Amino acid sequence: MIGDLSPQEIDDLLHSETVARLGCHANGRTYVVPITYAYDGANVIGHSAEGRKVWMMRANRYVCLEVDRMYNPANWRSVIAWGEYQELKDGDAAAAIETLVARFRPMMMSVTASPGHTHATPADVGRSKAVIYRIHLTEKSGRYERR
Amino acid sequence: MIGDLSPQEIDDLLHSETVARLGCHANGRTYVVPITYAYDGANVIGHSAEGRKVWMMRANRYVCLEVDRMYNPANWRSVIAWGEYQELKDGDAAAAIETLVARFRPMMMSVTASPGHTHATPADVGRSKAVIYRIHLTEKSGRYERR
Repeated sequence: MIGDLSPQEIDDLLHSETVARLGCHANGRTYVVPITYAYDGANVIGHSAEGRKVWMMRANRYVCLEVDRMYNPANWRSVIAWGEYQELKDGDAAAAIETLVARFRPMMMSVTASPGHTHATPADVGRSKAVIYRIHLTEKSGRYERR
Repeated sequence: MIGDLSPQEIDDLLHSETVARLGCHANGRTYVVPITYAYDGANVIGHSAEGRKVWMMRANRYVCLEVDRMYNPANWRSVIAWGEYQELKDGDAAAAIETLVARFRPMMMSVTASPGHTHATPADVGRSKAVIYRIHLTEKSGRYERR
């Protein structure tokens, strides 16, 4: 059967996953790209080098995110959410980095022998010109299929 | 290391996967949605009920597709492709359905006790008003990370 996820199930999926597909559009072109993220219950928080998706979201802040868990083609959950891109600076950026680090530390320790190496700190961000952003979600929908 | 996939590696990933994230944009709104697809080497072939993504692609045929294989956060391959939506009728639709059925038959037999039940035939399509479409790819790029 196919059905709608409840608001709680939608939030549970956003909390449990770490990869979203971000859709943005500017200058007549649509772009879909995977991002890693942390969810704070109201915003999807991410970081990026300067590049195409950042330029596009600066030009048009209204974006779409898709997050799913696919067990197999007949068993899956998917959330589609819309929101507004906001670039973070100073204290807001530092707090967002804390959220990202807390979310990814356990995961990175399982895939690398040098945990910490991949974690941005506020000092790293200053050096690398990373962009710290949040997407404030304004609308969410969720669907599932189960057989 | 992070790098670019070769044209052959891009095509291999498009052939090996069956789920893409489709990004479309119309009337000021961007939409990202998972689709199942078959790739014929030049087009991504899909089917859909009448609904939001079909209406949006009729309004603006220029779309973006993202296909990936995520082994873990530090090991993945991702292809982003752009193309044009084309709705198929008659013989073109029948040939596209054959391609979809051939691609999904082995997979569906592994997840359901009633294979065939989920397969659209030309007669089913007439009954259910399914839309058969292809996205003719005009540009492809691919990236990988490996640690």
